[in-house]
Amino acid sequence: MPGQEVVLGIDIGGTNTVAALVDREGNTLFNCELPTSSEQPAAHLFRTIYDAISSELTGVQLRGVGIGAPNANYFLGTIEHPPNLKWDYVDLRQEVQLYTTVPVGVTNDANAAALGELLFGVGRGMKNFVQITLGTGLGSGIILNGELYSGSHGYAGEIGHTIVESGGRLCGCGRRGCLETYVSAPALVANAREQMQHHPESKLYQLDVKTITARDVYTAAQSVDAAALAAFEETGSRLGLALSNTVAHFDPEAFVLFGGVALAGEYLLEPVRRHLESNLMTAYRGKVKVLLSALPGAAAAVLGAAALGWQEVDRSGG
Amino acid sequence: MPGQEVVLGIDIGGTNTVAALVDREGNTLFNCELPTSSEQPAAHLFRTIYDAISSELTGVQLRGVGIGAPNANYFLGTIEHPPNLKWDYVDLRQEVQLYTTVPVGVTNDANAAALGELLFGVGRGMKNFVQITLGTGLGSGIILNGELYSGSHGYAGEIGHTIVESGGRLCGCGRRGCLETYVSAPALVANAREQMQHHPESKLYQLDVKTITARDVYTAAQSVDAAALAAFEETGSRLGLALSNTVAHFDPEAFVLFGGVALAGEYLLEPVRRHLESNLMTAYRGKVKVLLSALPGAAAAVLGAAALGWQEVDRSGG
Repeated sequence: MPGQEVVLGIDIGGTNTVAALVDREGNTLFNCELPTSSEQPAAHLFRTIYDAISSELTGVQLRGVGIGAPNANYFLGTIEHPPNLKWDYVDLRQEVQLYTTVPVGVTNDANAAALGELLFGVGRGMKNFVQITLGTGLGSGIILNGELYSGSHGYAGEIGHTIVESGGRLCGCGRRGCLETYVSAPALVANAREQMQHHPESKLYQLDVKTITARDVYTAAQSVDAAALAAFEETGSRLGLALSNTVAHFDPEAFVLFGGVALAGEYLLEPVRRHLESNLMTAYRGKVKVLLSALPGAAAAVLGAAALGWQEVDRSGG
Repeated sequence: MPGQEVVLGIDIGGTNTVAALVDREGNTLFNCELPTSSEQPAAHLFRTIYDAISSELTGVQLRGVGIGAPNANYFLGTIEHPPNLKWDYVDLRQEVQLYTTVPVGVTNDANAAALGELLFGVGRGMKNFVQITLGTGLGSGIILNGELYSGSHGYAGEIGHTIVESGGRLCGCGRRGCLETYVSAPALVANAREQMQHHPESKLYQLDVKTITARDVYTAAQSVDAAALAAFEETGSRLGLALSNTVAHFDPEAFVLFGGVALAGEYLLEPVRRHLESNLMTAYRGKVKVLLSALPGAAAAVLGAAALGWQEVDRSGG
């Protein structure tokens, strides 16, 4: 008698890895968090995950596995030189296939988040939308025709690395002027530092300027600090313009904002919407929504990985 | 006994309209050119087309109709305020359905060109590519997963209207800084005029500066005119950077360049390729081709319309 159908979602982070058994409706039946321990071979992590979930698997029917990991490639099933991890190269799909024969999907965190939104979040029922994850960087995941779009080489949706300012701020990717150097948590702080120079009365000067965080800028904005508000305006202006250019590519129904910076809510959303609309070509105006993610922050990444697992089940004809 | 299977392709232009019966391999069985006469109702044009082809239809089996027209909307089957045409609004699909019950597809010229390339040109066998039409403006058509991608509202692929310079050159769409104001036939001329100021020895000064054409710039470049070469460098630099940002969205296999300006060949291609590569993120480098269209210039538009007809036949389960 087969038990309830589930997939195993695995979200590999720099410090911790979350694994969860998730059903088709997005309900989590079991979930555990483990140290990623990337100083050891990846095989060690997968052995630990398997040990943790094996007793849970007896009562259910495992249909697929989805893995979200930094720098992961959908087509290859691998990660290469992931930031904040000590592995050079890992064939994630192969590691999992030591334990199971069900379909295994691998993609980067931002793509997994987009799939999570499609299956379990505000993207339900949408055909075309773009998920923007605002954290340390700016990640993006593209849903087209109701599926994750991975491109020809597994690298579609790197909107954070579109160049918006030739010769602009230095990016972690080695180039200059990438969108994520103007729109992300560190970028919000950089924008606030620039604005502080025009607002010597800013409360942010009461903090150690070198260690200001995005949360500090948000707190200052809440008390109507002019430098902080101007930093959100600048960040929203950059993102609104960039998204208008993305609309001219994809003509989507919506953007879904996710991640730490998106928690600033209207402080970010209002300028983003305003600058998006004002930069759109007439044909698109009033047609593209900017929404906040509806997924629970802490669980969103592993739900996204699980959603990828379900996509792989469906693609394999399951 | 049903005859050979064909579709009717119709390319509606500002002055003339071309209609052709085309088989699945892209062979043209019959073709005629008529004045568009947009001072009369569109019904008149379709009556004239039908009169011209009706005797040709007796020996063949008409499977579908594809129409390429400026400002056409794939989902609605209509055109609205088309540039260079006197019609306000025409339901093209309805006009055709007075004469036939086969599937009818409608899209803009740039999308039709992309489909033509996919079925009959250098795009054969590719899954993801972007067609760039360089003429009076910069049109683009997006092929994803082997099909035309139309977006959520029928307006996907307006890359010519991505804003690349805030507050930049005035565009025909009413906004400023659109890519097509820097990359198109008139833009090449504008770029040449700017460069002439740095090159007082330019042969272009021997022409009437007000009436210089893109062809004049090309001819001057062939005789190693510094201003003309710098104009191609500037145009290629702008296009290369813009295409690198498009790669960060779609991760395509290739770009296919089409239209009058693309006839400049290496004068344009070399700087485009160089600036595309130098602006790409590492993961994409060396992976994206820049190709010239292989479709016969004069017939490309109607072949593209015919290709749309075949897509509609396939989508309707035919």
